[in-house]
Amino acid sequence: MTPPASPLFSPRGSAQEIEEGETFAPKFDAGGLIACVVTDSQTGAVLMVAHMNAQALERTIATGEAWFYSRSREKLWKKGETSGHVMHVAEMRVDCDQDVLWLKVDEAGPGACHTGRRSCFYRVVVRSGPDAPLTLAFRDDARVFDPAKVYGQEAG
Amino acid sequence: MTPPASPLFSPRGSAQEIEEGETFAPKFDAGGLIACVVTDSQTGAVLMVAHMNAQALERTIATGEAWFYSRSREKLWKKGETSGHVMHVAEMRVDCDQDVLWLKVDEAGPGACHTGRRSCFYRVVVRSGPDAPLTLAFRDDARVFDPAKVYGQEAG
Repeated sequence: MTPPASPLFSPRGSAQEIEEGETFAPKFDAGGLIACVVTDSQTGAVLMVAHMNAQALERTIATGEAWFYSRSREKLWKKGETSGHVMHVAEMRVDCDQDVLWLKVDEAGPGACHTGRRSCFYRVVVRSGPDAPLTLAFRDDARVFDPAKVYGQEAG
Repeated sequence: MTPPASPLFSPRGSAQEIEEGETFAPKFDAGGLIACVVTDSQTGAVLMVAHMNAQALERTIATGEAWFYSRSREKLWKKGETSGHVMHVAEMRVDCDQDVLWLKVDEAGPGACHTGRRSCFYRVVVRSGPDAPLTLAFRDDARVFDPAKVYGQEAG
């Protein structure tokens, strides 16, 4: 059995232990990452989905603020490190097989998305015909901050 | 540029096109999968997170019912094919960089989780001390169906 990536985590046990137990044994993928769904603790809206490695998860737990691992930039990042839009974790849940986390957060800023929207999910997939390419319709897409002012070049 | 995996999808364009455009150009990972967050269209609760390959996404769009790709069983599966707990897609959204889908669904059955709960996220991660292993506390974990009766051996 692979030892856990942190003393805060328990080793992966049987399916019964993982699904019905009280020990936290997160499963990281081959790249060392676990997916995290982030919702607004007040409205319940899905804000974003990001990934954590073991270190990001440790820091999130230690600080109560959301840290992730950026696959594109290949580095640990604290949400809000550039923008100031820190996310305070109100509750963290784990799913049945412990390979996805769900964070309910209180946001210090107006929006979670680097494009300036409240949520990253500001477009609906629309079917226009049985074989026609799908299109996107903007929904809940008002900009709540100016990303050029907040980030300059770099998202975060 | 890699051609899209289905005539329903558009090729991946520039970051500007992907983030601000009206064409659906989903990004599948190295394993050909895209993550999908599934929420209850009525309550907003996060029910589960699963993956789709291009074929599962095509079928979901064609039928209005949620299809996924099971990484553990390495096969396409229609949610509810065994249990009857089909998910009707009320709305599908895509995130800014088009590598995550969010499905708001109406459930034909009482619960989404193969353990018999309404949601797969029935445990909260609890910190008991600065360096102590984290534990899990059960929350919203009532069983709404008997998985042994519904599934026998196989989840779905």
